[in-house]
Amino acid sequence: MKFNFLYPSVQKDIDKIENELKIAVSEADAETTSESALHLLTAGGKRIRPMFVCLTARLGNTPNFSAAQDAAVAIELIHMASIVHDDVVDDAELRRGRPTIKAIWGNHIAMYTGDFLFAKSLEYMTRIKNEKAHLLLSRVTVELAVGEIEQIKDKYDFDQSVRAYLRRIKRKTALLIAASCGLGGIIAELPEKLDDKLYLFGYYVGMAFQITDDILDFSKDEKKIGKPAGEDLSQGNVTLPVFFAMQDPLLRKRIRRVTEETPKEEMNHLVEAIRTSGAIEKSEQVATNYLNKAASILDEFGNQKEVKPLRQIIKMLDKRDY
Amino acid sequence: MKFNFLYPSVQKDIDKIENELKIAVSEADAETTSESALHLLTAGGKRIRPMFVCLTARLGNTPNFSAAQDAAVAIELIHMASIVHDDVVDDAELRRGRPTIKAIWGNHIAMYTGDFLFAKSLEYMTRIKNEKAHLLLSRVTVELAVGEIEQIKDKYDFDQSVRAYLRRIKRKTALLIAASCGLGGIIAELPEKLDDKLYLFGYYVGMAFQITDDILDFSKDEKKIGKPAGEDLSQGNVTLPVFFAMQDPLLRKRIRRVTEETPKEEMNHLVEAIRTSGAIEKSEQVATNYLNKAASILDEFGNQKEVKPLRQIIKMLDKRDY
Repeated sequence: MKFNFLYPSVQKDIDKIENELKIAVSEADAETTSESALHLLTAGGKRIRPMFVCLTARLGNTPNFSAAQDAAVAIELIHMASIVHDDVVDDAELRRGRPTIKAIWGNHIAMYTGDFLFAKSLEYMTRIKNEKAHLLLSRVTVELAVGEIEQIKDKYDFDQSVRAYLRRIKRKTALLIAASCGLGGIIAELPEKLDDKLYLFGYYVGMAFQITDDILDFSKDEKKIGKPAGEDLSQGNVTLPVFFAMQDPLLRKRIRRVTEETPKEEMNHLVEAIRTSGAIEKSEQVATNYLNKAASILDEFGNQKEVKPLRQIIKMLDKRDY
Repeated sequence: MKFNFLYPSVQKDIDKIENELKIAVSEADAETTSESALHLLTAGGKRIRPMFVCLTARLGNTPNFSAAQDAAVAIELIHMASIVHDDVVDDAELRRGRPTIKAIWGNHIAMYTGDFLFAKSLEYMTRIKNEKAHLLLSRVTVELAVGEIEQIKDKYDFDQSVRAYLRRIKRKTALLIAASCGLGGIIAELPEKLDDKLYLFGYYVGMAFQITDDILDFSKDEKKIGKPAGEDLSQGNVTLPVFFAMQDPLLRKRIRRVTEETPKEEMNHLVEAIRTSGAIEKSEQVATNYLNKAASILDEFGNQKEVKPLRQIIKMLDKRDY
């Protein structure tokens, strides 16, 4: 994702972070690790977490790009680690249109590559000399791990509550984006309450971000999302559009029959039915509500020019189709 | 392992750490994680890493048990995390005589339990307010992860060098014991060179420790080691006794034929042949040499009474059969 429509200088920061990520995963004496980690890295990604670190870190009076870069690299490495492990558990063959690490090197290498990325993130965290930053990152990392393990239990459980879903996406996505914004605020040396506001801002954005990802799983355009439509559902992940679709008793019956063995053709029909049920529009509304909450937090930061790009991002994320 | 023959107070410290480990893995809202992590914790373990942290942390003038406890818990959690992931890769059914996490809950839960334990270790690291400690732990954690991934490539490679083996056990075991002792030194606020000496002490002890574990894999007494004899070899792990055994051309031929499919009976005969080849005694000598090197480092710490238990541990580790 290119951010130069925001500020050319933000894109410059992201390019530097991209370069540092390459350095981070290139470990001498560890060919396989570097190869598999580089494979994931060069597949790209939106780098939305690093971007939020950079943008929020600019809100203070004394910008410290070096600290922001360390925080951004640490967070993106944690995100990459969790992606690699999730692909093992989801048995995913494709990510961003490219074969996953587990598809190329197998589950064992994928597991250890995730461990390596996570360990590497520690090195970058260590460079940030700030206790509050350390506490924030360690707490979020634990929540992330707990979320990963708990979500296995929710699979194919079509009687779970929407609350269970919201808690799941909070842990899976929102907390790390919240941490990105919170860390930026800490690095910017904003007064404490404003750190927490930024954390909450990131949380709302993260919730919207994951809901949109879950909506995109039902997109017609498989190329844009880099994986087959309806994959989440066929893997038993009950997401927001599914909850809304299940409000229709007939659709509910069909959805509850989904198992790992449901034939692809039947899934395609079901995905089409969910798509035309109104569930997508309702889910989009929920995502928009979260983004509106995020936007209203920004009001507290006044009219300084550094706030503008954050507003633009919110607009960009609303109803994105990629 | 009971250490009360050393000091009653050391055992007291270890008991406190044991209790803190239980608190660490008991996460509200995370039933499965806590259950699987507790299963591993209550299977016991020698807690040799916490013990080294405690003993070396006492070498300074101002003992700080609270910091030593945080460091010990962090290191033991890292160790536990790597155990859980190794059991997935080794497809191990038993550890310390009890079913492994992957045997009971499956590979996916085991992977995430490892992630959880590792994330939890971060929380404890964060409590240690010392940059050198953070740097040491983050560096060792990366090496550990790199070691895990690289060792997969060495499996069933009977032409690998002894150097490859030594590098493997350094990463697998010695570095974390080195870090335990180095951290103790940092917490004890010893002058810098003495920290590094303790780190080296731990490295030598760790090398001896792993070589002894590798020898025990050929032990007659399966009950003592809690897994079938020769399991390492049948999984393609080429360990020091195997290198010595391969000095005999006939044994070399037989060992090189080992694959995953080698029948259990044939393996039993081979293990017996290795056991009586002199390879065990030669390996024991190498372990003893490492322990002697460790002991000679202790000479630099003079005759203070806090050094005595470290000498006793060395004696205890020499030719241990459990």
